[in-house]
Amino acid sequence: MNTATPAYEQLASTFTRLHHLEHLQSIAGWDHAANMPPKGNEARAAALAEMAALMHRMRTDPALGSHLQRAEQEPLSELQRANLREMQRQWQAATALPEDLVQRQQMATSRCEHAWRTQRPANDWAGFVENFKPVLALARQEAALLSEKTGLRKYDAMMDRFEPGMTCAQVDAVFGEVRQWLPGLIQQVLAKQAREEVLQPVGPFAQDKQRALCEAVVRLLGFDFEAGRLDVSTHPFCGGVPEDVRLTTRFRNDEFLTSLMGTIHETGHGRYEQNLPREWLGQPMAQARSMALHESQSLSFEMQLGSHPGFVARLAPLVVQAFGEQPAFTPQNLHRLITRVKPGTIRVDADEVTYPAHIILRYEIERPLIEGEIEIEDVPALWDAKMMDLLGVDTRGNYADGPMQDVHWSAALFGYFPCYSLGAMYAAQWFATMRRQMPDLDARIGAGDLAPVFGWLNENIWSQASRWPTNELAQRASGETLNAAHFRAHLEARYLG
Amino acid sequence: MNTATPAYEQLASTFTRLHHLEHLQSIAGWDHAANMPPKGNEARAAALAEMAALMHRMRTDPALGSHLQRAEQEPLSELQRANLREMQRQWQAATALPEDLVQRQQMATSRCEHAWRTQRPANDWAGFVENFKPVLALARQEAALLSEKTGLRKYDAMMDRFEPGMTCAQVDAVFGEVRQWLPGLIQQVLAKQAREEVLQPVGPFAQDKQRALCEAVVRLLGFDFEAGRLDVSTHPFCGGVPEDVRLTTRFRNDEFLTSLMGTIHETGHGRYEQNLPREWLGQPMAQARSMALHESQSLSFEMQLGSHPGFVARLAPLVVQAFGEQPAFTPQNLHRLITRVKPGTIRVDADEVTYPAHIILRYEIERPLIEGEIEIEDVPALWDAKMMDLLGVDTRGNYADGPMQDVHWSAALFGYFPCYSLGAMYAAQWFATMRRQMPDLDARIGAGDLAPVFGWLNENIWSQASRWPTNELAQRASGETLNAAHFRAHLEARYLG
Repeated sequence: MNTATPAYEQLASTFTRLHHLEHLQSIAGWDHAANMPPKGNEARAAALAEMAALMHRMRTDPALGSHLQRAEQEPLSELQRANLREMQRQWQAATALPEDLVQRQQMATSRCEHAWRTQRPANDWAGFVENFKPVLALARQEAALLSEKTGLRKYDAMMDRFEPGMTCAQVDAVFGEVRQWLPGLIQQVLAKQAREEVLQPVGPFAQDKQRALCEAVVRLLGFDFEAGRLDVSTHPFCGGVPEDVRLTTRFRNDEFLTSLMGTIHETGHGRYEQNLPREWLGQPMAQARSMALHESQSLSFEMQLGSHPGFVARLAPLVVQAFGEQPAFTPQNLHRLITRVKPGTIRVDADEVTYPAHIILRYEIERPLIEGEIEIEDVPALWDAKMMDLLGVDTRGNYADGPMQDVHWSAALFGYFPCYSLGAMYAAQWFATMRRQMPDLDARIGAGDLAPVFGWLNENIWSQASRWPTNELAQRASGETLNAAHFRAHLEARYLG
Repeated sequence: MNTATPAYEQLASTFTRLHHLEHLQSIAGWDHAANMPPKGNEARAAALAEMAALMHRMRTDPALGSHLQRAEQEPLSELQRANLREMQRQWQAATALPEDLVQRQQMATSRCEHAWRTQRPANDWAGFVENFKPVLALARQEAALLSEKTGLRKYDAMMDRFEPGMTCAQVDAVFGEVRQWLPGLIQQVLAKQAREEVLQPVGPFAQDKQRALCEAVVRLLGFDFEAGRLDVSTHPFCGGVPEDVRLTTRFRNDEFLTSLMGTIHETGHGRYEQNLPREWLGQPMAQARSMALHESQSLSFEMQLGSHPGFVARLAPLVVQAFGEQPAFTPQNLHRLITRVKPGTIRVDADEVTYPAHIILRYEIERPLIEGEIEIEDVPALWDAKMMDLLGVDTRGNYADGPMQDVHWSAALFGYFPCYSLGAMYAAQWFATMRRQMPDLDARIGAGDLAPVFGWLNENIWSQASRWPTNELAQRASGETLNAAHFRAHLEARYLG
């Protein structure tokens, strides 16, 4: 213990303890999704709630606040100062909201989510609205409190929970630009792809063969199976802890590409976690930077690399090895399957090109919703108009596949949606930078040499963790902050080139 | 909250909190054995140590001690009073030892265990003795402290940690009696079995088929797969929590009976846990009574029921279904395989008949060792003499398969060994009682009707949890405290009948 920095050392030790307890939370959370039999649910929920309450007490302990103040005055290294900045961010988040607001939110979102599970299949918009109103009212209170505390505008304060430093000003600029060219680009791509013949793979695809294929590809992508696993869960995710990363996927018998590309996506999250700086693990500075940055890694893997024609050419023989020869398994046809564009109502099923349209729509609705400019009753008409405008899709009367299609709003995750597309844009920006620095990048990917990609990501993203604010990280990695032009160039090159 | 019993209610709420945290510990422990990749080990150990320290602080909180005192004076129901008795037992165990003794013990056992892993294969007795001496010295200190605190003699105080209420006086009486007839019985059984022809099953036995067979048998034995799982681990065990029981087994390709019978053993532990009284879960009273009682359930399943000729006749068609027809798969031959007796050096490989000899030997050595009547240097000669005396096996010079064969002494688990054989004896006593109460029991087992067995165990053992001290539980269940005559009658009927 460095006696020159006693407050800082106290803080570091508290955050190490929290890291240890988070480990048990994460593993229990993964187990819940991957293993737990149904009757274990109640006891698991009680155990996780107990742990959450215990950790909340640790995170809001007034002693932590005074240590944070004193540590400010201590002589700290640059890395320690970065760590202190992240500690302060976490302290602010943990202490921002009064306990009773948090509890009322938990009850309101839990009721709304629970009812949503049956209201969605019944297309019961009126029922949903009734449960959603208290969720929205509490989220607006939260936004007002966070805004007051941080000095940020309300939606910025909500977004800051997932994407620190991101602002509506930056999102408006970026999304506003994308909005100009995206609908036209989609139409061009559809016209081009209408002229291309695509062969469908013929199933069934045995699960053990799909699993072996996925494992081989995850290995090819550098995931360390000595420090992680691949299992099955209903909703695929990347969980566990940096020292033991748990990827999940799910298998269908009639189709294998969704699972394979989903696994590649989670592998991107997993490699980020596996390569966070080991010597700092346990400290806030060693955590992944943000949700958009995390998504930039999964999409670097799934979209930039996994859907790259050179990579797909390496994938094709593995697919043949798994399922035998099929006319659909040529590299060219597999690439066409993977890059097929089709406007639809459902965000999670969307392809790389139409996906941002879904996100822009959500952002354009949830920002005014949180800031009190519109009410929930205004949403369906806005939704229908924007879906028609952006994607040419008619959603009138279809609430189930419209504003009720995913859990985010029931769960009060306002401010989260933008991260998905910001991640896709960052991913394109990283690869544009790599190509500038390594002009033979595409040839090397085509030759199966993925080391340059992993080396760049490790040096610029993974190893940097939360050392810098996001804009500074982007600047250091690519010479500029978020710039959607790279995403546009990527889509044009891949889909119109 | 019952305002008439505020101290009791406080205690109940603390133990519920501990139960929730134990849930996360248990699941992480199971995951460690069944899933964890090697590089996750260090982080997992740190997480579990953090949790253990946190729970130790909760368990030794002085407030708990004063609540316990005050609750004594409160008006409590009979069940609450039983619960309070178990709370006091746990409090006494948690507060019995000074922190620094516990820490020195952890270091000494951890060093001894770690070295033992390489010393055992090298048959390095001298090296082992060096590391074992501090372990023994600290265990003797522990025994002295516990003895002082409880008023029990030293070995009784050590045994009390695993088998509350059990004393050397009771063990001496029981083991002393077994010692008289066991060596002779073993020789008679060997002579009888030498005249019987036994066919060996022919492998290999595919793991997926073994797994399907095990799952079918576990289901047949009434385990609830909606509230538990069966997985693979190096050392089979029953873990998890009562609400979500995790059984494990391991498979060899050349042999299937070890895994099958081991799985049946763990299922006995599992059904005990799954049927502890739900409405009391979280309270000490709802925990399994003791290690011998737990072992009485696993051995009721493996030995009393699983090796019963009537049950084996139900097993045979499942074995044929799994692996196809073989001459070795007749009910009679399978039963001979399962009940084969062969004296050997290794306890964990021992059959039902020779197993108690191993335990009596350990007890006769570790009791005087803990009580300072002998030293570690005296152990090999005693071991050799007792092995020859009890089993006719020559162990001279073979420390690896002698006193170094298992981890218990390195880990300072003195007082644990007797529980294994006490469990076998209790199991025989339960079945003798069932036969007295249900004269057609064997016919019903042979007809595949296991409900009477499960019903009896549930009513007399599982649902009773820790409601009564063990002797009273035994008395209520079978009309007498532990009586080894039932075990002898069982062995004679099965092996000489």
